[in-house]
Amino acid sequence: MSQFVNAKESLVVDSLEGLLRSSGGKNLARLDGFPNIKVILRTDHKSSQVALVAGGGSGHEPAHAGFVGPGLLTAAICGEVFASPSVDAVFAAIMAVTGKGGCLLIFKNYTGDRLNFGLAAERARALGKKVEIVIVRDDIAIPNIPQPRGIAGVLFVEKIAGHYAAIGWNLKKVAAIAQKAADGLVSLGISLSSCTLPGIGREDRVPRGKAELGLGIHGEPGVDLVEYKGAQATASILLKLIFAKVKPARSYAVLINNLGSTTPIEMSLLANEILKHPLAKKIKLVCGPAALVTSLDMHGFSLSLLPLNPEFEVALKSSASPLVWPGVYTNAKPKLVKLPTALRLKVMRPSANPKLAALIDSACLIMIGAESKLNALDAKVGDGDTGSTMATAARQVQANLTKMPLRKLDQFFAALSAEMTRGMGGSSGVLLAIFFAAASQEHKSWTEALQSGLKKMMEYGGARPGDRTMIDALQPALDALSSSGSLRQAAGAAREGANATAAMTSARAGRSTYVSASNLNGIVDPGAEAVALLLEGLAAR
Amino acid sequence: MSQFVNAKESLVVDSLEGLLRSSGGKNLARLDGFPNIKVILRTDHKSSQVALVAGGGSGHEPAHAGFVGPGLLTAAICGEVFASPSVDAVFAAIMAVTGKGGCLLIFKNYTGDRLNFGLAAERARALGKKVEIVIVRDDIAIPNIPQPRGIAGVLFVEKIAGHYAAIGWNLKKVAAIAQKAADGLVSLGISLSSCTLPGIGREDRVPRGKAELGLGIHGEPGVDLVEYKGAQATASILLKLIFAKVKPARSYAVLINNLGSTTPIEMSLLANEILKHPLAKKIKLVCGPAALVTSLDMHGFSLSLLPLNPEFEVALKSSASPLVWPGVYTNAKPKLVKLPTALRLKVMRPSANPKLAALIDSACLIMIGAESKLNALDAKVGDGDTGSTMATAARQVQANLTKMPLRKLDQFFAALSAEMTRGMGGSSGVLLAIFFAAASQEHKSWTEALQSGLKKMMEYGGARPGDRTMIDALQPALDALSSSGSLRQAAGAAREGANATAAMTSARAGRSTYVSASNLNGIVDPGAEAVALLLEGLAAR
Repeated sequence: MSQFVNAKESLVVDSLEGLLRSSGGKNLARLDGFPNIKVILRTDHKSSQVALVAGGGSGHEPAHAGFVGPGLLTAAICGEVFASPSVDAVFAAIMAVTGKGGCLLIFKNYTGDRLNFGLAAERARALGKKVEIVIVRDDIAIPNIPQPRGIAGVLFVEKIAGHYAAIGWNLKKVAAIAQKAADGLVSLGISLSSCTLPGIGREDRVPRGKAELGLGIHGEPGVDLVEYKGAQATASILLKLIFAKVKPARSYAVLINNLGSTTPIEMSLLANEILKHPLAKKIKLVCGPAALVTSLDMHGFSLSLLPLNPEFEVALKSSASPLVWPGVYTNAKPKLVKLPTALRLKVMRPSANPKLAALIDSACLIMIGAESKLNALDAKVGDGDTGSTMATAARQVQANLTKMPLRKLDQFFAALSAEMTRGMGGSSGVLLAIFFAAASQEHKSWTEALQSGLKKMMEYGGARPGDRTMIDALQPALDALSSSGSLRQAAGAAREGANATAAMTSARAGRSTYVSASNLNGIVDPGAEAVALLLEGLAAR
Repeated sequence: MSQFVNAKESLVVDSLEGLLRSSGGKNLARLDGFPNIKVILRTDHKSSQVALVAGGGSGHEPAHAGFVGPGLLTAAICGEVFASPSVDAVFAAIMAVTGKGGCLLIFKNYTGDRLNFGLAAERARALGKKVEIVIVRDDIAIPNIPQPRGIAGVLFVEKIAGHYAAIGWNLKKVAAIAQKAADGLVSLGISLSSCTLPGIGREDRVPRGKAELGLGIHGEPGVDLVEYKGAQATASILLKLIFAKVKPARSYAVLINNLGSTTPIEMSLLANEILKHPLAKKIKLVCGPAALVTSLDMHGFSLSLLPLNPEFEVALKSSASPLVWPGVYTNAKPKLVKLPTALRLKVMRPSANPKLAALIDSACLIMIGAESKLNALDAKVGDGDTGSTMATAARQVQANLTKMPLRKLDQFFAALSAEMTRGMGGSSGVLLAIFFAAASQEHKSWTEALQSGLKKMMEYGGARPGDRTMIDALQPALDALSSSGSLRQAAGAAREGANATAAMTSARAGRSTYVSASNLNGIVDPGAEAVALLLEGLAAR
């Protein structure tokens, strides 16, 4: 699969340039050390405050460059994809941002990061800089290993440290609370695919129907290949594993992290399964679902669990304004708002109007009688159901005529509109419903009401006169009716309009747009024919 | 490919529940009409203000439910995946949120949406609600069609309307400015893959090396299948097409929208190519790159361009706090911060110390002399280069000895640390650099300095005594040196410690972790042996 890159070598540098170009005004800059030194930093850091510096390999965006900003990181050091940044890069970042307040280095527990961040820290210390270190080892995938990996939970540590650095705590205290957060964190990931390495491609190692449990965030295989049994079961497996490992506490914060290409709709669905699970009763705060510490385009997610205390809670909830920070919210049962009462169909009081009833009954009979003729016509240029659709609607109206409010024009049109969506399928039902709904609004006369209906039908349906639809009969008919008041003249205009559609060989709306010109030629549009037949029939009463 | 869903039928409902569960405190709720009526709405909307209602098919998350909140939408109506919501759902949303301020309906130009939103609007109007409509038709993919599709640009219309609704403009004025924004918008998308339809799968119709230009956001094929020539060329093609179509203006806002599974690193890289392009000189404001109006997991992006005026600019820049709003920033040249001067290697003034120079020279000669012996040992349990690595470092130190600050202990150790990363590859170089960097910090004595180095080497390297590394010789040696002050005793302790590694059959750090117990048994660790040989050699001087 191709990717949106230029060359693998310039990928990280190009993308960091893009991050800066698209964030003007955010007080972000980079150190002038490309391509070896890739550091994004705040230009508004107060040197008296603790500088918070994090980083690691790239490919985990928005981590960590996207988290640089007020309330979170002071600088992020970016290595090449999945590779630790160099000692020089880490050292440059520390030296660039560390003032009197000192510097807290946060990184995930990988040998390369430990060595490079470690050496850089020691060198900065040798030059008199105050530097403390917190290493995140939250991944519980591999039991009893001496050096657990660090994964997405790192963001919680960064946020907590970021808050207390921002409110002016000193380095010792910021480091201590960050360390406490790191000590409490447990995380675990699961995935339905591996990731696509730039310039290399994707290793298709996860068979259909399986999932990799306990995977790293660098394409390293998961610890277990498990049966994939849907979202609910997957959420349950992860929750059980992390709750079995985390320290007991009264409440927890959870980070629901998208590992890359899981769609937002899947992520929200997973959030639902996670947060409604019995184990989630103690989950008080939720961060995400969001793509925060990704593994390129891996189709998976990870959960991180942090035992809460009041200090963590304040810190997680506090505002922060890097490019990306989704906020932390309360785990809550969905709130429901009652459906508006108008929705429960207003039963309009029936009222008698023998003259109108007779007219409508005739109209229905005409449409029922035209069923097979219209179907046959439609079979030549469409899907052969115009007659049946119209007849169905007519039968529906006929059957309910005595229940209709026939004495009030607006109410009668509203009732007709309701019958159209109840009895008729497809877009023609909705179009006629729109016609009658518009007609049911305040109008001075029958003709004005019907003209208003036509206007709306054109507006929403998108068809104009000449597009080979029922409008080609309806519009001239209503125009004739408006000016003359004569049903007979309206019928004549409708017939003329309908017949003219036979010469329209380029349909611009409706089903006939899919039919070739030669097949349309000479055939009258079934919708227009229906209008003409209806009005001719009514005029002949 | 599997997906994180339970059943296709409950996908949208489940995910909306998840959205609500994970956003407690955001004043969001849903109408109590599942599964047919899927509406997310604010519970804090002021009825005197214009209610902003948008929606459409699902599969475009975070659009539109993620945009419900202060400064943006009042409610979002969600259809099934890629299907228009029902008339009842739209009607319910309008009725639920529309007060005295009236309601502005915003939707994308698809027949189904036009009909269903249109009918709902007419029905609400018939009940006396003030409802205005703005239909977004920003897609320029298909030239000269009567009904251009609406795609990601809809977000700009929503944001602009949202701002003016929030500051109390009346319905007419909000609708007018939203319509003006919709009229000016042009958008175009390109993709390297189609999307995976839940329960159906992904149609692999984009061949490798090709891209679909002018695609819809519902999996409909692009208008053109073009050669894919990398990120830069792709950005250029899209920019040229949208700038050719947009109305001339002094400045523009661009929306850089991730269609689904494009990784953040690719999106930032694309942002770079877009914003540094000559055509982008007139792009003043940037929204994204971010996944805002997606097409499930499509690997592509779209650009939307809006000619700016002062009213649009104020509205786009104003704050808004739905679940997802990436903000709008200025298109800016990346700001550079000079590298810290400490990085340019501080040339420490050489100082003579014949006694120390002789000691170090001896040490170097010992390590050079041990090269092949150590390599042979390492070949049995590692990759056979311990001797060469050590000898290379020794030669490097020897060659630079006269340039070193030999009279000041801290400076000398700092210089040694620098030589270790300059002359030595691999993690052992960094480990020794850490050792000497830590030793170079303020210490009372040689032994205290070296003990401090050892401590840091263990901390960052992660190895402990007994893990079968050089530490097994170094630690007892330094302990002996500290307590006795005797190099001979230190050498003895180192030898004893090194020899003990031969019985350690479970390496817990370094290369030997990959070697089986039976292969390790009886072999002294080469790093420990190096320490022992060094100290024995020095003691025998």
